Amino acid sequence: MRHTISVLVENKFGVLTRVAGLFSGRGYNIDTLNVAPTADSTASRMTIVTRGDDATLEQIVKQLNKLPDILKVQDFGEGEYVDRELVLVKVAVDSKTRAEVMQITDIFRAKIVDVQAKSLTIEATGDEGKIEKLLDLMKTFGILDLTRTGKVAMSRK
Amino acid sequence: MRHTISVLVENKFGVLTRVAGLFSGRGYNIDTLNVAPTADSTASRMTIVTRGDDATLEQIVKQLNKLPDILKVQDFGEGEYVDRELVLVKVAVDSKTRAEVMQITDIFRAKIVDVQAKSLTIEATGDEGKIEKLLDLMKTFGILDLTRTGKVAMSRK
Repeated sequence: MRHTISVLVENKFGVLTRVAGLFSGRGYNIDTLNVAPTADSTASRMTIVTRGDDATLEQIVKQLNKLPDILKVQDFGEGEYVDRELVLVKVAVDSKTRAEVMQITDIFRAKIVDVQAKSLTIEATGDEGKIEKLLDLMKTFGILDLTRTGKVAMSRK
Repeated sequence: MRHTISVLVENKFGVLTRVAGLFSGRGYNIDTLNVAPTADSTASRMTIVTRGDDATLEQIVKQLNKLPDILKVQDFGEGEYVDRELVLVKVAVDSKTRAEVMQITDIFRAKIVDVQAKSLTIEATGDEGKIEKLLDLMKTFGILDLTRTGKVAMSRK
């Protein structure tokens, strides 16, 4: 099963390595991960999207809770939450296809952030489903470059 | 100096741990990091924002290039690039302040993605300067929760 795990950590050296190591050490694959400071500059929040069997994940969460410098672990596997991801994608265009790519960008409420003679760079945000659909459509024109932030999540409560 | 480093890696086990370990092992602080798949499902892209002295960073980049499973390393320290970050921020509101928070959200072309009796959850994207300004303004109302993806970057070429 797929899980989205949010880990609040102290903003210290090597915490990222320890957390990532806990997953890879148990053969658990990380689909996406991101880490950035919170409003409190001594703490950072990591969001990890991972898949594998639930029993192993439960053990990983237990071990996370035991690690030093870990302040809070939330497993959004079943809870109510908002999630979003940001993507920058550079799409190949020519004089014939530019208008069509711009139209699709509009429909997805995405933004064009850079224009070159043979490419458009598009910024899109949304949940996973929306992002996947947009990328699928853009593939037909040719994706020259792609970078995604991975998912961030927040409980609605 | 601050650097934004983009690392294309093979989508294998433990690569993240090795890359993160290279920075922390040399006492180099990671401000933000994210990793997610690219258009080619066998490769992932990591974007790392880091600060410290340039000589050490140069060594780290050299070592990165020697690691197995590393396909490409780009240092956006001086190059021309587009960068963006996504933030979800839950702001405390009451009947008096809700309209004002919505107004600020509008000015920043951010979106309200969840509404509760005593909070609004806002999705904002932009470069670092814009995000910092928005968060500064929201602090006066009270930030209840905050999660950021960290920066992603793409060369304009």
